[in-house]
Amino acid sequence: MTTFGADLMARLDAFAGFTEEPGLLTRLFLTPQHRAAADWLMELMGKAGMNARLDPAGTVVGRYEGTVPGAPALLIGSHIDTVRNAGRYDGNLGVLAAVAAVAELDRRGERLPFAIEVLGFGDEEGVRFPVTLTGSRAVAGRFDRAALETRDRDGVRMADALRAFGGDPEAIAAAARKSGEALAFLEVHIEQGPVLEAEGLPVGIVTAINGATRFAVRLRGMAGHAGTVPMALRRDALAAAAEMTLAAERVAASSDAGLVATVGRIEAKPGAVNVIPGEAAFTLDVRAPEDSVRRDACAAIVADFEAIAARRGVELAVETTHDAAAAPCSPGIRRQIEAAVIRAGVRPLSLPSGAGHDAMAFAGVLPMGMLFVRCKGGISHNPAESITVEDADLSVQILLDIIRHFEHETPTP
Amino acid sequence: MTTFGADLMARLDAFAGFTEEPGLLTRLFLTPQHRAAADWLMELMGKAGMNARLDPAGTVVGRYEGTVPGAPALLIGSHIDTVRNAGRYDGNLGVLAAVAAVAELDRRGERLPFAIEVLGFGDEEGVRFPVTLTGSRAVAGRFDRAALETRDRDGVRMADALRAFGGDPEAIAAAARKSGEALAFLEVHIEQGPVLEAEGLPVGIVTAINGATRFAVRLRGMAGHAGTVPMALRRDALAAAAEMTLAAERVAASSDAGLVATVGRIEAKPGAVNVIPGEAAFTLDVRAPEDSVRRDACAAIVADFEAIAARRGVELAVETTHDAAAAPCSPGIRRQIEAAVIRAGVRPLSLPSGAGHDAMAFAGVLPMGMLFVRCKGGISHNPAESITVEDADLSVQILLDIIRHFEHETPTP
Repeated sequence: MTTFGADLMARLDAFAGFTEEPGLLTRLFLTPQHRAAADWLMELMGKAGMNARLDPAGTVVGRYEGTVPGAPALLIGSHIDTVRNAGRYDGNLGVLAAVAAVAELDRRGERLPFAIEVLGFGDEEGVRFPVTLTGSRAVAGRFDRAALETRDRDGVRMADALRAFGGDPEAIAAAARKSGEALAFLEVHIEQGPVLEAEGLPVGIVTAINGATRFAVRLRGMAGHAGTVPMALRRDALAAAAEMTLAAERVAASSDAGLVATVGRIEAKPGAVNVIPGEAAFTLDVRAPEDSVRRDACAAIVADFEAIAARRGVELAVETTHDAAAAPCSPGIRRQIEAAVIRAGVRPLSLPSGAGHDAMAFAGVLPMGMLFVRCKGGISHNPAESITVEDADLSVQILLDIIRHFEHETPTP
Repeated sequence: MTTFGADLMARLDAFAGFTEEPGLLTRLFLTPQHRAAADWLMELMGKAGMNARLDPAGTVVGRYEGTVPGAPALLIGSHIDTVRNAGRYDGNLGVLAAVAAVAELDRRGERLPFAIEVLGFGDEEGVRFPVTLTGSRAVAGRFDRAALETRDRDGVRMADALRAFGGDPEAIAAAARKSGEALAFLEVHIEQGPVLEAEGLPVGIVTAINGATRFAVRLRGMAGHAGTVPMALRRDALAAAAEMTLAAERVAASSDAGLVATVGRIEAKPGAVNVIPGEAAFTLDVRAPEDSVRRDACAAIVADFEAIAARRGVELAVETTHDAAAAPCSPGIRRQIEAAVIRAGVRPLSLPSGAGHDAMAFAGVLPMGMLFVRCKGGISHNPAESITVEDADLSVQILLDIIRHFEHETPTP
């Protein structure tokens, strides 16, 4: 028997009914299904003792007052938009777990010396418009108004879609919490990776949301007949790419600082069984919880690439296509989450987040931290995404414990 | 000044005018352009003192009688079909160099104790129909009649195209030389590789036409988020493919027996910058002048693949898609070609042929040998295919010298 797990899982299943495609879960930002989900969520928040509203950026905000009305708030949230053909837990778990925790406080009549605001952001996935973190950036006071001019693939402007949804593009600046209004930001989220499962742990404490650098690498060697060119006379662009792929893997694997490197896409040209590839291209994605680790690794990898290209007589072009700094979680919040994990009888494992999350928007603005929940096989962005009822229950128990023990620090990172 | 070079180059240029695509050279088997080229070639043979005819398989045959009419013939030839957007020398050089050599004998009134037959085969490239070596196999008595039922991409049967061309599908068996009618087969051909150029040599003696084995390799690991799966928990199918690519290269490079191995095509799935590839596929082409070398190399490479797949926890499927034995050149013919190369003042370099040639059809049927001619950058199957007038001249000089010194051995391989 679990106290909160069964109810929470049932609500997550019901919430998955708000979808554009019956039988699948697809709920993009500012769609009618997003609005219906927001309405359902606001009703749920009301039953949990919160005053619920939609903010100008389309975020559902449920406020549970503290002992004194109007006190600064502990923000807890995640997102309620999904990718296409999504799982039910990515984002939604964090929002509904927070609602469950507040409902328990309300049921017991507990008030804390601070308010709690549960936030259901509308755009973390960035599927509909070519931007992301719209809701969380607005609350963090970091919204870039240029996003309002972006268009979806049907040509609809975000500003127009937001207005139709019930938001207010002109008032987005008002969604930002003023100094002293918010104490910290907490997010519960499925891990979307295999570490907790491999460690046999239900939850983990996030150290940082990794920074990421992406490269597009192009190689030009010399094409030739696969039968007529002796090995010593070759300038095989694909063989060079293969050696570079292993070099990137080796640099990442030799680090103990959470570094990962991935070659996800590769192509050889002309791409015939009997022709030595004259050209090759591949992508490289490098992530680490610390920016200095990532920068050093990128430099080491590119130096390896240059040495490999020079030795093989292959021309190398490396283009940086993406570069985002890491968002470290606040040490104080990490300590508070860790203490609650230990009180729950769970070995506290700290791990970085390789994927991006709403919490990133608050790095440097508010003390910020995340609790990761184990997911089956590390699978996410897929209908096979799965968590257990026991882990769902524990995530609410721990969140409730964090809230009850929450000590606010000076609201700087 | 060259004796034969300028004329030969001019004829090769003129011959390139028989093309389906003006400005390019594309002359596929049994097309009207092939027939026009055959007619031009027969006329040229007539002027060189030969009786020229079209055999039932569409091969142009020019016969220059010896001192006694009806004597067994030394066969010298290559092909006059081309790939699409071809160079001017692949195949055509061998045919026109042979005509030039016979023309010189005729001009001087020289007759030898054997006849010479110059052969212009019609289908070495295998571009139009899904078969190859049609003309040379017919002469060698190895034609497979199933080829007549194959169709081109417009649905035309080879048998019908051959009849329209002026050949005779029913009489192809009669194109085969009977025992004692032919002494040997010689072929002059551009190298289509970079070895002679790298060695600073105009010509080389072919040791064998390499055997070839091709594999289709498929790998299945586990896809995952490029940010969330630590290096130690990955089963990256592309990283495995990269390691295998280098393993194949290493096995080939460590051999001194003319072994080559090429990964020409590669694919990673799903193929996104931020996803660890769960599947990968690549092709492997392995060639060597000796079958035992090729077989041992394939076994060593596949064993490496299995070890890599096991270590990385990746499923491996290796399919053999092509397997052709080597066609060794006859030691006696090699010695005669080598002697002529030395008499021409050229350092004799022996090298394997990585590409297939008409001479393959005669391996095991007649003593067979090939003279390779340097081509610029090793480039072939490309309009940039290029030879020098001096090398063209020397190829005729050496062929003439081989003919004049030819000693026939018992006509077995």
